[in-house]
Amino acid sequence: MNSVADLTLHKRIRSDISERILSGAWPPGHRIPYEHELMAEYGCSRMTVNKALAPLAEAGLIERRRKFGTFVARPKIHSAVLDIPDIPTEVTGRGEVYDYELLFQRVRTATLREMEELGLDRSAQVLVLRSLHRAAGRPFALEERLINLETVPEAADVDFGATAPGSWLLSHVPWTEAEHRISAANVPRAVATALGIELMAACLVLERRTWRSADRITHVRLTFPGEAYDLVARFAPQGGLSAS
Amino acid sequence: MNSVADLTLHKRIRSDISERILSGAWPPGHRIPYEHELMAEYGCSRMTVNKALAPLAEAGLIERRRKFGTFVARPKIHSAVLDIPDIPTEVTGRGEVYDYELLFQRVRTATLREMEELGLDRSAQVLVLRSLHRAAGRPFALEERLINLETVPEAADVDFGATAPGSWLLSHVPWTEAEHRISAANVPRAVATALGIELMAACLVLERRTWRSADRITHVRLTFPGEAYDLVARFAPQGGLSAS
Repeated sequence: MNSVADLTLHKRIRSDISERILSGAWPPGHRIPYEHELMAEYGCSRMTVNKALAPLAEAGLIERRRKFGTFVARPKIHSAVLDIPDIPTEVTGRGEVYDYELLFQRVRTATLREMEELGLDRSAQVLVLRSLHRAAGRPFALEERLINLETVPEAADVDFGATAPGSWLLSHVPWTEAEHRISAANVPRAVATALGIELMAACLVLERRTWRSADRITHVRLTFPGEAYDLVARFAPQGGLSAS
Repeated sequence: MNSVADLTLHKRIRSDISERILSGAWPPGHRIPYEHELMAEYGCSRMTVNKALAPLAEAGLIERRRKFGTFVARPKIHSAVLDIPDIPTEVTGRGEVYDYELLFQRVRTATLREMEELGLDRSAQVLVLRSLHRAAGRPFALEERLINLETVPEAADVDFGATAPGSWLLSHVPWTEAEHRISAANVPRAVATALGIELMAACLVLERRTWRSADRITHVRLTFPGEAYDLVARFAPQGGLSAS
C-alpha cells in the first residue's frame, strides 16, 4: 500500500539525488549509489528506490547501465526543442499589425526540382503558391509553397487569397509529420525584390516538408530577412525534474 | 489481473483509433467516442479503455478536455527537435578530416557586450577564446567563446590548444541547461577573413548560452559559411505511436 509517508520518502530520495547532480557534487559520469546502498541509507524498499530513480532516468539526468550501475548522464546539448514560428502569432505578439498577400497561385505538373522538394518519385499535379507575410506593413517573410494535389485534391478549389495556406492545411489535413531544414542564404534576385531587401543581404531560410504516413503533403520555404527573425531552441531533456 | 487477452484488447483498441486518426478518417478536432461508448463497443472495462487511450494522449495524438470528451489533436508543427551539430562528429561523418586551431586565448574583465552575452548582471573575469574548426583543410566554423571564470575558474589553466573548449566543458562541467539562437547574418570583416569567405556571403550563426541553475557558464557563437551547413529539425511528438 502506498502511504503518504512512502510518497514523501521517494520524493525526498529523488530530490537529494537531483540536488547533488545539479550542484555539480556528482559530475557527469559519476556512479550513483547502488540500489541496495540507497535502500540501507533511507531504510526503504527496492520499490521506493525505483520510484525515486525512474523519473530521473526518464528526464535524462541519470543513465542505467545493466550490470554496471547507474551514472550521472552527460549533458545532451546536441539536441534541443526548436520553436517553429507561427508567423501571424509571432507578428501580433510583437504588437505589430499582421497582414498576408497572395502573390501567385497556379496548378501545374511538378518540375523535377518540385518533385525533389516534395519527395515524390514520379510527377504529380501540384499547387504552386507564393505569398508575402507582412509585419506593420513591412515584408516579414516570403512563403513559397507546393501542395501535392494527389494527397490533398481539395486544395485546388480553395481561395488562398482569403485564407493563408498554412492555416488552411492545419485545419483540413489530418495528423502529419514534418522535417525542418534551416540554412542561411544570399537569396535570388526575385526573392530579394519581393522582400524589399538588398541583393546580398543574408536571409534565414526555413524549409519544411510535411507528410502523412507515406503521402507527401506540402513543401514550404520561408525566407526571413536576416535582421527580421531569430529562431530559438531550448535545451529540454524529456520530462524534466518536476516529473513526479 | 492482466491476462494476455486483456493486453491484446487494449492494444487493438489503440490501433483502431490511431489508424482512424492517421488515415484522416478522424480529422483534427474530431471527438472520439466517449469512454462508455468504447466500453460498449469492445465489451471491456473502463480500465482497458484507459490503458488504450493513455499512450495516445502522451504521444500528443489525442487531447482530453475535462467535461467535453476526447478529441483528435491538431498537429503541433510549431516545435521540433533540433540537432545541434557536434562539429568533429559532423565533419568525420562526412568522411572528411577534422582539425581544430586555437586562434586566440585571453583572460580579461568582461566588456558590457560580453556581460550581456553571458547574461551577467555585474562584471566578472572571463576567458575569451577564438578557434577555427576545419573540414578537409577548409574552414568549417569559427567559434567565439566566453567562459565565466567565476563559475569555472579551472578553465584558466587549461591548454585549449590541445583540447577544444566544447569538449573540455562537456567532460568537466556538471549538468547544464542551454538556450540556442539561430540567425542568418552578413558577418563582420574579421569573421569573413578567418573563414576565408567573401565579405557579403551569408552565414548561419548559432549562439548557445549555457548555465547551471543560476550560474552562467559559457556563451559560444558558431559561424558557419552559408553553403557549409544546414541544421535539421525533426518534428517529434513526445513518445510516439509505438509507445505501448
